[in-house]
Amino acid sequence: MWGGRFSSRPADIMQAINVSIGVDRRLWAQDLAGSRAHCRMLIAQGIVGAEDGAAILSGLDTIQAEIEAGTFPFRDEFEDIHLNVEARLSELIGEASGRLHTARSRNDQVAVDFRLWVRDACDRTGEQLKALQRALLTRAEQHAGDLMPGFTHLQTAQPVTLGHHLMAYVEMYGRDAGRFADARARMNESPLGAAALAGSPFPIDRHATATDLGFDRPMGNSLDAVSDRDFALETLAAASICAGHLSRLAEEIVVWMTPMFGFVTLPDDLTTGSSIMPQKRNPDAAELVRAKTGRIMGSFVALSTVMKGLPLAYSKDMQEDKPPVFEAMDALDLALTAMTAMVAALRPNTARMAEAAGWGYSTATDLADWLVREAGLPFRQAHHVTGAAVKRAEALGVGLEQLALAELQALHPRVTEDVYKVLTPEASCASRQSFGGTAPEQVRARIADWKTRLA
Amino acid sequence: MWGGRFSSRPADIMQAINVSIGVDRRLWAQDLAGSRAHCRMLIAQGIVGAEDGAAILSGLDTIQAEIEAGTFPFRDEFEDIHLNVEARLSELIGEASGRLHTARSRNDQVAVDFRLWVRDACDRTGEQLKALQRALLTRAEQHAGDLMPGFTHLQTAQPVTLGHHLMAYVEMYGRDAGRFADARARMNESPLGAAALAGSPFPIDRHATATDLGFDRPMGNSLDAVSDRDFALETLAAASICAGHLSRLAEEIVVWMTPMFGFVTLPDDLTTGSSIMPQKRNPDAAELVRAKTGRIMGSFVALSTVMKGLPLAYSKDMQEDKPPVFEAMDALDLALTAMTAMVAALRPNTARMAEAAGWGYSTATDLADWLVREAGLPFRQAHHVTGAAVKRAEALGVGLEQLALAELQALHPRVTEDVYKVLTPEASCASRQSFGGTAPEQVRARIADWKTRLA
Amino acid sequence: MWGGRFSSRPADIMQAINVSIGVDRRLWAQDLAGSRAHCRMLIAQGIVGAEDGAAILSGLDTIQAEIEAGTFPFRDEFEDIHLNVEARLSELIGEASGRLHTARSRNDQVAVDFRLWVRDACDRTGEQLKALQRALLTRAEQHAGDLMPGFTHLQTAQPVTLGHHLMAYVEMYGRDAGRFADARARMNESPLGAAALAGSPFPIDRHATATDLGFDRPMGNSLDAVSDRDFALETLAAASICAGHLSRLAEEIVVWMTPMFGFVTLPDDLTTGSSIMPQKRNPDAAELVRAKTGRIMGSFVALSTVMKGLPLAYSKDMQEDKPPVFEAMDALDLALTAMTAMVAALRPNTARMAEAAGWGYSTATDLADWLVREAGLPFRQAHHVTGAAVKRAEALGVGLEQLALAELQALHPRVTEDVYKVLTPEASCASRQSFGGTAPEQVRARIADWKTRLA
Amino acid sequence: MWGGRFSSRPADIMQAINVSIGVDRRLWAQDLAGSRAHCRMLIAQGIVGAEDGAAILSGLDTIQAEIEAGTFPFRDEFEDIHLNVEARLSELIGEASGRLHTARSRNDQVAVDFRLWVRDACDRTGEQLKALQRALLTRAEQHAGDLMPGFTHLQTAQPVTLGHHLMAYVEMYGRDAGRFADARARMNESPLGAAALAGSPFPIDRHATATDLGFDRPMGNSLDAVSDRDFALETLAAASICAGHLSRLAEEIVVWMTPMFGFVTLPDDLTTGSSIMPQKRNPDAAELVRAKTGRIMGSFVALSTVMKGLPLAYSKDMQEDKPPVFEAMDALDLALTAMTAMVAALRPNTARMAEAAGWGYSTATDLADWLVREAGLPFRQAHHVTGAAVKRAEALGVGLEQLALAELQALHPRVTEDVYKVLTPEASCASRQSFGGTAPEQVRARIADWKTRLA
Repeated sequence: MWGGRFSSRPADIMQAINVSIGVDRRLWAQDLAGSRAHCRMLIAQGIVGAEDGAAILSGLDTIQAEIEAGTFPFRDEFEDIHLNVEARLSELIGEASGRLHTARSRNDQVAVDFRLWVRDACDRTGEQLKALQRALLTRAEQHAGDLMPGFTHLQTAQPVTLGHHLMAYVEMYGRDAGRFADARARMNESPLGAAALAGSPFPIDRHATATDLGFDRPMGNSLDAVSDRDFALETLAAASICAGHLSRLAEEIVVWMTPMFGFVTLPDDLTTGSSIMPQKRNPDAAELVRAKTGRIMGSFVALSTVMKGLPLAYSKDMQEDKPPVFEAMDALDLALTAMTAMVAALRPNTARMAEAAGWGYSTATDLADWLVREAGLPFRQAHHVTGAAVKRAEALGVGLEQLALAELQALHPRVTEDVYKVLTPEASCASRQSFGGTAPEQVRARIADWKTRLA
Repeated sequence: MWGGRFSSRPADIMQAINVSIGVDRRLWAQDLAGSRAHCRMLIAQGIVGAEDGAAILSGLDTIQAEIEAGTFPFRDEFEDIHLNVEARLSELIGEASGRLHTARSRNDQVAVDFRLWVRDACDRTGEQLKALQRALLTRAEQHAGDLMPGFTHLQTAQPVTLGHHLMAYVEMYGRDAGRFADARARMNESPLGAAALAGSPFPIDRHATATDLGFDRPMGNSLDAVSDRDFALETLAAASICAGHLSRLAEEIVVWMTPMFGFVTLPDDLTTGSSIMPQKRNPDAAELVRAKTGRIMGSFVALSTVMKGLPLAYSKDMQEDKPPVFEAMDALDLALTAMTAMVAALRPNTARMAEAAGWGYSTATDLADWLVREAGLPFRQAHHVTGAAVKRAEALGVGLEQLALAELQALHPRVTEDVYKVLTPEASCASRQSFGGTAPEQVRARIADWKTRLA
Repeated sequence: MWGGRFSSRPADIMQAINVSIGVDRRLWAQDLAGSRAHCRMLIAQGIVGAEDGAAILSGLDTIQAEIEAGTFPFRDEFEDIHLNVEARLSELIGEASGRLHTARSRNDQVAVDFRLWVRDACDRTGEQLKALQRALLTRAEQHAGDLMPGFTHLQTAQPVTLGHHLMAYVEMYGRDAGRFADARARMNESPLGAAALAGSPFPIDRHATATDLGFDRPMGNSLDAVSDRDFALETLAAASICAGHLSRLAEEIVVWMTPMFGFVTLPDDLTTGSSIMPQKRNPDAAELVRAKTGRIMGSFVALSTVMKGLPLAYSKDMQEDKPPVFEAMDALDLALTAMTAMVAALRPNTARMAEAAGWGYSTATDLADWLVREAGLPFRQAHHVTGAAVKRAEALGVGLEQLALAELQALHPRVTEDVYKVLTPEASCASRQSFGGTAPEQVRARIADWKTRLA
Repeated sequence: MWGGRFSSRPADIMQAINVSIGVDRRLWAQDLAGSRAHCRMLIAQGIVGAEDGAAILSGLDTIQAEIEAGTFPFRDEFEDIHLNVEARLSELIGEASGRLHTARSRNDQVAVDFRLWVRDACDRTGEQLKALQRALLTRAEQHAGDLMPGFTHLQTAQPVTLGHHLMAYVEMYGRDAGRFADARARMNESPLGAAALAGSPFPIDRHATATDLGFDRPMGNSLDAVSDRDFALETLAAASICAGHLSRLAEEIVVWMTPMFGFVTLPDDLTTGSSIMPQKRNPDAAELVRAKTGRIMGSFVALSTVMKGLPLAYSKDMQEDKPPVFEAMDALDLALTAMTAMVAALRPNTARMAEAAGWGYSTATDLADWLVREAGLPFRQAHHVTGAAVKRAEALGVGLEQLALAELQALHPRVTEDVYKVLTPEASCASRQSFGGTAPEQVRARIADWKTRLA
């Protein structure tokens, strides 16, 4: 393949370390799209004649048909997808095939193909995030008024609603979608025409190929075009942050499904059993979603490490860009699909959650707030009085709402009967009417907002 | 500090592991800004009386003056910046200070302060990136026509100009700035008013505090507001990608300064000597810029790992968010400053670079392109003929342009005298007129574009 | 400082990026130790005269006294700990101080000092791990027979004892200690005498300085001695794995402390409260231990990234070796101390744990095993019968041990009354007598083994 | 597969996320080995009858033959290698196959199989490291006396020999081998017999299966046995550090091969050409070795992240342990093989290297040392004088050895004609006779040591 100079065939080890067709064959559709755009431009610019051009385009169609039919001969000896397609084109149409490579280098083919693939992956992930958000909205609407404990430190803090809790994730996945959209917009410039690294002496039209491939414009510097992979890193970073968000909800599903919590169950078809413990319903899908975070974060580290300190322009190190990206985006794809299925299928035990919402003196803050609002205490003093009330209730083994008025008045004389109205979880939730708060009306208003945004 | 319930003081180990004032004192300005906005809103909503409100605002002014004067008593016993300010306010204005904490929790103070800090850091980094781009533009303009070898695999590939090479980095740092701008826009929502996690029962106005603090709007979910740190992760990811770009230019400076390359020197005040080798001029600054990549990438990993699998809402793990962010942004700050200084001060040995631009048969592609364009060969055949020409020139120990016409014609009969016009590095560069190519006119056009964009 | 050649002072930016005294002053004791060993060797070899040598040693003693008294003038202008000590020695004893640097370079000082520090850190960590193991052994002995649910997927799987569970961590921390011991043994070679990178022309005795500093032998290659940091990476890897083990126990403490589990409490002095929710007892220490994993893993990534692709020998990049190591080892120190305190103070609610041990059909495996052992069924068939029994018990809303014999016999005719003996958690635990199993005798035997190993 | 309880088949998504046979089929040999050992023990203990036992062992032999012949039906419906083998065994020998699973769980099968694989990988890596060391020793011996520049900061520092430089890597790879050996020794305990997590009620003999499988002893705690993966993390850490060492030599090969350095070439069969630049000889193999560091480091991060914060015992997250380990060890395997081939084939341009060894005033330290040794100056003064000499030589555009004696004496009166003896690179090298120094005798002595160690 390498022209007329090499006096010996690459040794087996070179073959083994160099061959990438097993990985980059996934880029076949992008490779054909790039070649078609290049060919059409070459014809339009008069660099390739109409007849040769038509032969090339027809040959590319044949190759597409072969690949789709599973009959295309992927061959290790041709190293990568670009050379496999080139070799096949030559077999199919003969000498004219060589003209396709006028004013083009493998370096910019690599850059174009991979960028197109990553762009598609961003689009697909954006759609999946919307589907997950919609699943969450549906469930949040069903449970906008159902109580559960709001946790800090996994300790009961204040009552919230399950709808409110799920809506927190709608916000997170919304920002995740924003990151993929921004990455997509930033990467949407065409490297095609950079040639090996310096641009081309042929009268090519980079704006035309950019438009043909759906890019906003050609990249402004040929060295940059063939040597940067920041679009892949930005996508991996967005994937990594998104995977972190998924891991949090996955962790909650695992914890909520323990018999100790008993907050939710998943149907049998989303759990698995055990080979030795037949009673088990294991949240394997949630655990695997949680675990995928590792691979995705590891992929960002892998590619960042590869790129660190590489001089311009292309170095072969960059061939190691695809495995981490393919693996991470596959893992994210699976994790988003699995999480959407789990969200849709989750069966909350609302009675159990509501009961737990009242544990652990979860309305203590409401007492403190009442003391500020109704009795005029400065917050810090109200806090102190509340702490003493909790201590007293603990000593008596009762809830705050079961403390006698005399007990409360002994702690502060301005307490009145009226205080009991704020000491239930329902009242606590209903009172938190600040924008974005857990009061069911607020939750429903945010659900309505998001429905509009996702419409 | 913890109300009236705890029967024993936190043990020393708790103090040691829990105290964060040594780290989060950096947030003092943000903490005061948040408190002022909250206080003004409480007054406007009638939650705090005008007199108490004025006392609080005045007390906050005093605290600011004390911090600026270096007389503020930062105390470990008050754990963090929020409690230090609170305690001092109480000493300064007495009981009224307690009212500042109405309808507010430390959780949202933490969220507001840190978000404001990260937002500022993004803005500052954006400015620094522009300064670096301007320094590069200046140097690129000076050297838009100066030849150097364009490398792939650190082998001479084709001649480019130094201006073109520097402009590749202008593109990269431009995308970096875009990432910080996008992160900034996405994070610019106010968490204030989320209270502990569920919102507040007081009639607060979250839109007012958002506007007061320069946020676009309040965040839509109180649980999300206190428990996510994706804004910090996105910023660290942008920093990590940017550091990678810096490491590449730093590597080039290190390599270009070896006696073997001799491409550039740096003035004495940007190099250091050796304690035992007095002749050394070491590119320490470039090496340190390259090394900072490690710390910045490590910071992204650190915070991603912290956040993985945390259930909602706030967990104490999140206190570990600040050290990686502070360290990474400090490192990036220093690296950008140092790189800008180096770019401005770099002294290229243009004669040496131009000489090297012609080594290694760097115009071989130009010969191949000539054979396609002028002799009508398909590219792959032209490539083959060129390979044979290089082999012959190597065997004779001469450059391509020194091969006799007869030698070339022996390889292909259609070669003419005309071919010698494309075999010099100057001609090679000048011919690459495609958009974004290395021809000096193209480089100058891109410089002009960027000057407009940065104006 | 840099000899007679530099015509201008390092610019401020160089100063800022280059100065490391704020970080490496922690190496003062190691720096003095290295200098003493070098000085004694120089005297013994006759390279430095007895009088000068005595002056140097006396000067070093003075410096140590000054540092210990807090009067030593650490100065940024002298960049690092080595030059600070050198400058001060010169002030104290004059010209003789210059002789200390005969046959030595800063490169090998850096290498020696840092290696000594890391070696000490490994030793200290080993001691802390033993202390944690001892705390676990004490608690395991107390609870060797106390039942709790053994979880897989955080679902109840089979009953185990709390002692058995705690002993799992004794094994993990034992392997962690082994890793630090191995790292320590591998790094215990002396770089001193490598000089700048090529060795020394003076008749130095590297074996003598190695012995003096407690090293096993001198390193065998001077380039390697000044340029590798694998000893630091290996230590960070061991720290990272150990932090992972700590994060698992920390996670369990957090989960076990929720009201839903109610398995354990921690005393007030190892928890914290909330500024707004006075009832909270938050497991902050456990959460911070869990979070420290992030910083420690990030440190391994940071230093690995720094070292990637550095050519030999010393590059300034390596100055970035100390911050990640210091931070990671500080974090691990704190995490080990905090975890040891928590283990010692943990208050298990054994009644609650024992009750939960019986939930979720946790003895289903025991039924299956009984069917194999006593009724002669192949395991897979026994598994199937057991699954049916669990399904039936679920349908009836009872435990396995409450299923009537007729019900069981309907599933398989060979079931007898005898089966009920294995259906209690106590019986289940007691039966698992395989080596390393959860039967209390087995647990106590392993405790006894470990007491001997740690004695 | 999951007993009699599940009322619906796992959904497609569960299948997709859960199935691992595509990955863990690599463990087939280990799975069969574990099953044989378990079966032999069951027979010896009388838990399984001789006839059934013989059928099982024979069935396992058949399976091995089928796998080796490529006829074994790997089926996704059976999820993983363990269930595939189990299902096939059942098809082959019928009901008796069920008895193999007596007193065993998939959890300990997973633990045994993976540990055996990782142990083998450590052994194989150890062998490869020795092969690489031997290749380096051979080359070091050839070039023990050949001069090259010793670099710090990639600036010429002092002359060394190429043999000395290569021997630095022999030391590094020796420590790498030590890390794999230590990891191997630490992991060499048998998890088999832990059953699901609590041990077994059957009278199994864990010491017997441990011995059968080449383990030193059974693991001491059944929960630990099924739930830790520190052996994999330690192996990945060793791989990561080793990859870092490989990346340094790979970087040097890339840099040394540029036309600017011209220090080495590689034969055609270890380089590749370019599709557009026929003259290129690209060091692709070296670049790919350098890049593999990314994937290997990323794998450590991936698995560390997976394991962070997992409660005991087995969680499905752990299924994500194999991809990073397989990928990292494959990458390391390839990198070690490629590096060994490159070391063996490297063609140093010794004349060019020797010439460069004298550039940049590389014997300045020798002048300083001479001033100390022969003229009795304190080192810091000698350093100062040398700096002035370099400055003077630079001004005159000559080497140090070309400075007239009068010039030198003007800088310090005690300089004599004798000084010129130390100002050549040869003399400099020859003088560095300290243990581990670059003097050829020293280098040869270290080569002899290592030959003995590797014999």
